[in-house]
Amino acid sequence: MGSAGAGKSRRMPREVRERQMMDAAVATFGQRGYRAASMDEIAELAGVSKPLVYLYLNSKEELFTACIRREADALLAAVRAGVVERGIAPDQQLWAGLTAFFAHTAEHPDAWSVLYRQARTHGERFADEVAGMREELVSFVTGLLREAARATPTSAEPADLGDRDVVGVAQALVGAAEALAGWANETPDVTAREAASTLMNFAWTGLGGLMDGERWSAGNSAVVRR
Amino acid sequence: MGSAGAGKSRRMPREVRERQMMDAAVATFGQRGYRAASMDEIAELAGVSKPLVYLYLNSKEELFTACIRREADALLAAVRAGVVERGIAPDQQLWAGLTAFFAHTAEHPDAWSVLYRQARTHGERFADEVAGMREELVSFVTGLLREAARATPTSAEPADLGDRDVVGVAQALVGAAEALAGWANETPDVTAREAASTLMNFAWTGLGGLMDGERWSAGNSAVVRR
Repeated sequence: MGSAGAGKSRRMPREVRERQMMDAAVATFGQRGYRAASMDEIAELAGVSKPLVYLYLNSKEELFTACIRREADALLAAVRAGVVERGIAPDQQLWAGLTAFFAHTAEHPDAWSVLYRQARTHGERFADEVAGMREELVSFVTGLLREAARATPTSAEPADLGDRDVVGVAQALVGAAEALAGWANETPDVTAREAASTLMNFAWTGLGGLMDGERWSAGNSAVVRR
Repeated sequence: MGSAGAGKSRRMPREVRERQMMDAAVATFGQRGYRAASMDEIAELAGVSKPLVYLYLNSKEELFTACIRREADALLAAVRAGVVERGIAPDQQLWAGLTAFFAHTAEHPDAWSVLYRQARTHGERFADEVAGMREELVSFVTGLLREAARATPTSAEPADLGDRDVVGVAQALVGAAEALAGWANETPDVTAREAASTLMNFAWTGLGGLMDGERWSAGNSAVVRR
């Protein structure tokens, strides 16, 4: 950026500039990897000077931590927003959540790489940040499953799906979603919708149903037996 | 170890000594973490001198890599051995595989920590080793699912469960198993059998079935509708 641009950007609020730096940092960390990414590149991509990046975000470590937190919050917010409608059928709720999750990870591949590759690979401090997000995701899914189990008329005995079972299923569901998001983002031509649909069929219908030719259908909110 | 012990151990074959060092290394890396673990501790626990550890395994990095490879092979072998029986019903095969996986990760918590925590957290070189194991696991599960889909009499059209669907479901299943193993190993009182059973019910019956009170039962290889 020339001095004219610098003069102009000096009038930007700190918030806007910081967001630009973070956007540049997420793109750089996601594409080049945490270790290979340099503060020079990030500053250049953000169109600011390197000292300004340090002034705002202190160090590469703190900048990376800030990126992890921002992207974790964004992913959690996207999933929460996806299932905001209460009172809909549990399968529709799951479908809404999965669609939101896979749409977000597909639309933000750099953020996904920061959260699920880079943050987990470069030390416990960063991995702990992601583990925190994961716990929030599991506890959100646990809450939804609990509600769904209560709302299902046939479950006269709510103890049937025990408290620990519900947490276990939530863990399994989040683990499956993470694995599929990685697969979808790293396999050419696998769309977010396809990944969401594969997991929906698996999670809702089960392998037993899949083997019998059952499929979950978004249209009629019921399992289709072919 | 005193000099008498050292004299005795000098007659041990290299293979045996190397195994002792690796056992000590897996325990130390698993319990203390890769970074905190010292070669001194590992040598002491193995009852050998530190120079001997370096002579056999070169460096902390190479020792850690050797541990990852050994434990990845052991986990894969355990799962393969678990489903060695061909021709049994797909649900029984899945149950056998899950039981083998969770029994192995529960019986070898240090190895599990090396593979799923330490190796993933301390640099891309180690993470790549684990990614390789994961790929093998996914491709093994993919093969089983393909066989099962072919063997199921109702699937007149094998295209029903497409090639990519099968890979996606295998990814989901492995991701779910990894997440549940972590949860089981880090949550007091969650047994391997409980984790295997939670995943079996979820994976076979699906959430739709679970909500309706269905459970998979090992005894009669059929879904029990309560």
